[in-house]
Amino acid sequence: MKSKLVPGPLPSSIQLSEDGQLKHFLSIEGLPREMLVEILDRAEQFVTLPNKAQKKFPLLRGKTVMNLFFENSTRTRMTFELAAQRLSADVVNLDIRNSSASKGESLLDTIRNLEAMNCDVFVVRHHHSSAPHFIAKYCAPHISVLNAGDGYHEHPSQAMLDMLTIRQHKPDFSKLTVAITGDIRHSRVARSEIQALKTLGAKEIRVIAPGTLMPVGIEELGVKVFTSMEEGLVDADVVVMLRLQKERMQGAMLPSEQEYFSLYGLTEQRLTLAKPDAIVMHPGPVNRGVEIASSVADGPQSVIMQQVTNGIAVRMAVMSMVMGSQSKGLS
Amino acid sequence: MKSKLVPGPLPSSIQLSEDGQLKHFLSIEGLPREMLVEILDRAEQFVTLPNKAQKKFPLLRGKTVMNLFFENSTRTRMTFELAAQRLSADVVNLDIRNSSASKGESLLDTIRNLEAMNCDVFVVRHHHSSAPHFIAKYCAPHISVLNAGDGYHEHPSQAMLDMLTIRQHKPDFSKLTVAITGDIRHSRVARSEIQALKTLGAKEIRVIAPGTLMPVGIEELGVKVFTSMEEGLVDADVVVMLRLQKERMQGAMLPSEQEYFSLYGLTEQRLTLAKPDAIVMHPGPVNRGVEIASSVADGPQSVIMQQVTNGIAVRMAVMSMVMGSQSKGLS
Amino acid sequence: MKSKLVPGPLPSSIQLSEDGQLKHFLSIEGLPREMLVEILDRAEQFVTLPNKAQKKFPLLRGKTVMNLFFENSTRTRMTFELAAQRLSADVVNLDIRNSSASKGESLLDTIRNLEAMNCDVFVVRHHHSSAPHFIAKYCAPHISVLNAGDGYHEHPSQAMLDMLTIRQHKPDFSKLTVAITGDIRHSRVARSEIQALKTLGAKEIRVIAPGTLMPVGIEELGVKVFTSMEEGLVDADVVVMLRLQKERMQGAMLPSEQEYFSLYGLTEQRLTLAKPDAIVMHPGPVNRGVEIASSVADGPQSVIMQQVTNGIAVRMAVMSMVMGSQSKGLS
Repeated sequence: MKSKLVPGPLPSSIQLSEDGQLKHFLSIEGLPREMLVEILDRAEQFVTLPNKAQKKFPLLRGKTVMNLFFENSTRTRMTFELAAQRLSADVVNLDIRNSSASKGESLLDTIRNLEAMNCDVFVVRHHHSSAPHFIAKYCAPHISVLNAGDGYHEHPSQAMLDMLTIRQHKPDFSKLTVAITGDIRHSRVARSEIQALKTLGAKEIRVIAPGTLMPVGIEELGVKVFTSMEEGLVDADVVVMLRLQKERMQGAMLPSEQEYFSLYGLTEQRLTLAKPDAIVMHPGPVNRGVEIASSVADGPQSVIMQQVTNGIAVRMAVMSMVMGSQSKGLS
Repeated sequence: MKSKLVPGPLPSSIQLSEDGQLKHFLSIEGLPREMLVEILDRAEQFVTLPNKAQKKFPLLRGKTVMNLFFENSTRTRMTFELAAQRLSADVVNLDIRNSSASKGESLLDTIRNLEAMNCDVFVVRHHHSSAPHFIAKYCAPHISVLNAGDGYHEHPSQAMLDMLTIRQHKPDFSKLTVAITGDIRHSRVARSEIQALKTLGAKEIRVIAPGTLMPVGIEELGVKVFTSMEEGLVDADVVVMLRLQKERMQGAMLPSEQEYFSLYGLTEQRLTLAKPDAIVMHPGPVNRGVEIASSVADGPQSVIMQQVTNGIAVRMAVMSMVMGSQSKGLS
Repeated sequence: MKSKLVPGPLPSSIQLSEDGQLKHFLSIEGLPREMLVEILDRAEQFVTLPNKAQKKFPLLRGKTVMNLFFENSTRTRMTFELAAQRLSADVVNLDIRNSSASKGESLLDTIRNLEAMNCDVFVVRHHHSSAPHFIAKYCAPHISVLNAGDGYHEHPSQAMLDMLTIRQHKPDFSKLTVAITGDIRHSRVARSEIQALKTLGAKEIRVIAPGTLMPVGIEELGVKVFTSMEEGLVDADVVVMLRLQKERMQGAMLPSEQEYFSLYGLTEQRLTLAKPDAIVMHPGPVNRGVEIASSVADGPQSVIMQQVTNGIAVRMAVMSMVMGSQSKGLS
């Protein structure tokens, strides 16, 4: 049974250096509130408006960022690649499926080889929940590991870009009711998001999903559980829609798209149940007409594209923090 | 029937900004003569001789160029990538076949996401003729779109590199007879080239092809149509050979390579029909012994490799123009 | 019969320019001792310790390095890519299998096109032994070609990183006995290594392999041939283990892995036959339990990871030498 959202306990200390700086960025769990706020503050400085002159910063000049994507995700890879380029780092994408790793070399041997090339940052995407932690635990001390999504576990940079987007619209987390809706069970975003909201002191965190997409034991995380969309949305300040991960579901569990939309799709009508100034978020890519109506995805309350822009800024923030870069040189 | 070369009318104004600067580079059609000359003049400054010291310019520092190749073309992608690098831009290649776009996301959603990453230039190659125009029409105002070849429609950067090559050898277009020979029907190069030659005031434009490779209505473009190679080549100043696009043809239409070469292959003997100082061009890759004899492709009148070199320069020129860069900083 | 290690004679002069500088880096054969020492000295300056501040040098700014990998080798490609980036070059990876070369274009036409793009360095990996020499012979005079492994022939940058690693531990080659062990027959590393050791004046070079993995005529190279591991290892200063190239062997010749390990695997016990301070090398990726025991690969005498680090430095050295860069600007 893989339906439990919560894996074994993680060593929270591994992410921080002895002097309390961010060393690895593996999970929201284990990071203190001050660290999350520092990430948000740093990211805010990197948010570039389209015509802003300065988009490039020399903070990681001479550093090498290596994208290790054991699982394909073109878009997430691109945002990390852009973030690294804009910090003036050298970037290498390792197509891990064509590498020695696919010829039976162990993960540890692969890592040993890559770190011997004097890389500085590993961005790791992996289908196994433990992989980024494993790499962080066993890699050379000069390397920092960033989790770009691991199995059903965490996707911490996605969570932080969501927090940044929320804060830009609703600065006081202690007043917020956030409703996370959809395929909670297969979503690494959901878990990271819940942790981030708890740490930042959100007033109320709700999860809304049909029973088959709700992980066992989710209540232990301190969230309110709803199976009715209509009940869960009432007076929410933030509505986070999740992508229906069709490729991650088994046959019997899969509702038809029409059925799912009729019960859990975010329509204009349903959105009226939330606060009038509620914002609508989605990690993308959007299944229009499945989990969200097109009119809502493109509507005035949607901040989905702002999330994408913030994604680059948050990744730049985290990269520059783990590399110990000071915020000097920022505009 | 897809045999008509001319699609519906295109909004010529979309390519120019309100103050008359180049904003997008989608087609030769609709661009005034002065703009084409400016592209050629600017490109001439970027033509690098092999041992020239300066090959790198800071004009696009901090800008992000994204290669969106919905259709594979390694060589064209590389020339745009090199052009962007030599202007100091950050470059990201999106392997669109492995991205969310291939998971059923709409083109518009893909574009929305990419522009939210604060890219500046989209280089678009697409099998549909309307795609680059569509993207230019609907993308964010800070983005410029460059057409790197769309369906059977246009390939404007190829046309301009050909114009640059011609001008380097024959500066006065008004004295030139240009013979474009081969698979006119399936060639986006042909259409862009005819437009460019017309706009630059070439004396006479000829197309030479068997009837099955000649598009219906081609005369409307103001060209002279020949089905005989021997007649079409007489006194030409420039001979443009097109690649026999075997992969784009259906069975019945396909002549045997031997048959094609015997009727339409450019041999040394046939080339004597043109002016003695005529130049021979080809967009590459060359099918030796099919549309052109090896001795001609490698012969003294061939400028095929010069076209490749000019291709980088023209793409640098267009990129720097749409980004509003002044020519300061050029050597 | 492909079992002869030695192909036809190679023009040694092609690698040096008229004034004796390194022009191409194709094979160790034909390079004088002074040139190998210069490579090692230059590389030593580029060896970066993990936390060393300077890792990036401007020596190749404005130059374009093109990786032409006709044979897949992610790891080798990455080391050349990193080396070029750290010298501030622009790097383009040509996925040759998706390019025009795969549509029947000749190698020479591909090269002509790429050189017309004003590239400066071709890094060539090819399954045919003659390919890098062929390209070097026929490419434009401003291009330098680096051999990144050709067929069963040479892998000169691997040999030089091994020499650098040896020299860091045992500075005087004239005192050294080096035992190269394993699949000599299918190893381009072995041939390059033997040449390098001879040129640098190693006291004794031994090859150890079962008869089926030993090339005919190997004695002509001036090495001592052993079929017994126990005899070959006695008093060796350096033990170079080769990867069992399972993908390069035909059925009948292939020993079982267990059988191979029992006869030729480097175990802790066998290693005691060598000098007490002998170092153990391997070009990677390691087949643990096939040609080498895990305890040896990770043991105190192993310098395998140091080889990887040196690999970047040696490639930086060779690139900067063929580009005529002076060592000014080095820290």
